[in-house]
Amino acid sequence: MSEHDAAPGGPDDGAGPSRSARLTVWAPEGLGEVRPGDDLAALVGDLLAGEALADGDVVVVTSKIVSKAEGRVVAAVDREQAITDETVRVVATRERPGQPPLRIVENRLGLVMAAAGVDASNTPEGTVLLLPLDPDASARALRAALRARFGLDRLGVVVTDTAGRAWRDGLVDVAVGAAGIVVADDLRGGVDTHGRPLSVTVTAVADEVAAASELVRGKATGRAVAVVRGLDRYVGDDDGPGARVLVRSSTDDLFREGSAEAYARGYAAARREHGSAAASEAAYADGYREGFGEGFREGSGHEPLPGD
Amino acid sequence: MSEHDAAPGGPDDGAGPSRSARLTVWAPEGLGEVRPGDDLAALVGDLLAGEALADGDVVVVTSKIVSKAEGRVVAAVDREQAITDETVRVVATRERPGQPPLRIVENRLGLVMAAAGVDASNTPEGTVLLLPLDPDASARALRAALRARFGLDRLGVVVTDTAGRAWRDGLVDVAVGAAGIVVADDLRGGVDTHGRPLSVTVTAVADEVAAASELVRGKATGRAVAVVRGLDRYVGDDDGPGARVLVRSSTDDLFREGSAEAYARGYAAARREHGSAAASEAAYADGYREGFGEGFREGSGHEPLPGD
Repeated sequence: MSEHDAAPGGPDDGAGPSRSARLTVWAPEGLGEVRPGDDLAALVGDLLAGEALADGDVVVVTSKIVSKAEGRVVAAVDREQAITDETVRVVATRERPGQPPLRIVENRLGLVMAAAGVDASNTPEGTVLLLPLDPDASARALRAALRARFGLDRLGVVVTDTAGRAWRDGLVDVAVGAAGIVVADDLRGGVDTHGRPLSVTVTAVADEVAAASELVRGKATGRAVAVVRGLDRYVGDDDGPGARVLVRSSTDDLFREGSAEAYARGYAAARREHGSAAASEAAYADGYREGFGEGFREGSGHEPLPGD
Repeated sequence: MSEHDAAPGGPDDGAGPSRSARLTVWAPEGLGEVRPGDDLAALVGDLLAGEALADGDVVVVTSKIVSKAEGRVVAAVDREQAITDETVRVVATRERPGQPPLRIVENRLGLVMAAAGVDASNTPEGTVLLLPLDPDASARALRAALRARFGLDRLGVVVTDTAGRAWRDGLVDVAVGAAGIVVADDLRGGVDTHGRPLSVTVTAVADEVAAASELVRGKATGRAVAVVRGLDRYVGDDDGPGARVLVRSSTDDLFREGSAEAYARGYAAARREHGSAAASEAAYADGYREGFGEGFREGSGHEPLPGD
């Protein structure tokens, strides 16, 4: 991978004499508040005008500024309604004292996210933001404008959002839109350093780019744009399929429903088919959650499931 | 965040005149094959001796080389048994034609992973690798040795592995061990640029570091060590709690079981409580999966669940 060292404009600070693969991520300061109707490509282009963008660079922008420019703003009083409107399918819910229930749902874009990705931070008072209508299309438009402005052939664009995960605490940024970059590096057919087939087959490159950019941008700084240099091997000269391909198909999704929801549906199905009761699935779900509380030592995660 | 530009030894390639937050990740070449009983800290230290490590740097190593040095190698003929032995709890399974079933399980470390994290790539012929016994302890030991060798006060260490996710295709690297770095950045109590409380509260910093390092290391190159510079604000002078804190507690986990498994348990529970049949849960799970195949157009992900 020594070609990275020789990339046009590629950084080399002399920190090490070894032949190193190298990645540099930086987040310029100075993008002002983005407002509905703003020309995002012009604003981002102005911000990057002094950054000497090079062929093979990837420009990463938050979905937040894309949504703002695209006017995806609704009154905050409608937040719960906005979540409902963005929801295609409820995946799991959890009651929260003094707040509306947490809703993990699949949204219009196929993304499984808490609150459907409706965002209430870093938005003007009294408003919430919806995700862009088509973040892959937004990425393509931004890529076209930046390529033209800076005269670059190969330039990648990634649009990010922040998402929770099953099984792990904390949030990471993921790619919700992409253009001009390999979003999934398919290594099937490749071999490892011992000549054996690689068992790790597909790397979610665009998600890793999103995560790397978040480390630089941070959450409270207002930096919404980052540049990633050193991914030349992933940057192509066409738009590519977009980040949508990272959404797992329903037939491959073993976690299509929350555990409590699936348990409750199974219980209710058996009752419908074999029993006579009309108890609600919600009641069964409550029972399942209570079973968790009683059957497990909090946080240990190592006990068998009740009923196993 | 302009302090990053002034970090000792911090790279500045002059690519932009703006006050930029900046992250550099590089992966030196030259670590040979690691063998059971090797002194990993000495090998990694030798590799990094020419890299001018600086205060605030983070050294990222794959769990693979940690496992190799710690002798966590078993004969490949025992791969399925090794997965069983590493399993604390089965989360979800899927049949695969011509192969043993895919098993997504919680392992000894609390990690939910396919095949319990047992690894068959980039290992010597005829062997598979188990995850380190205690990757946080491995990270602490490596940190202590590297701090002493290079005379650094603040140095972070992250131990990575590659993991799948619910809902998204492709794999990303995550942190399975950590020392000397803030693994979860808790922003609760903070405010956004509009002075409103931040709704995004905890960033999984160590997972984002792992993801960023994977972009540089790649999968087929044999590079197993990376250095991340520019995270000074996350690097402390004690070991910290380790990556284990990123494992979600069982009581907070809405996806503790696969959907089919939970549905089947619910179905069977209703039959036990209200019915008379003795059909197996496995049969119900099969029925659930078949329902998916019939009730959904493949890949669309937008249909209601059968029975909704």
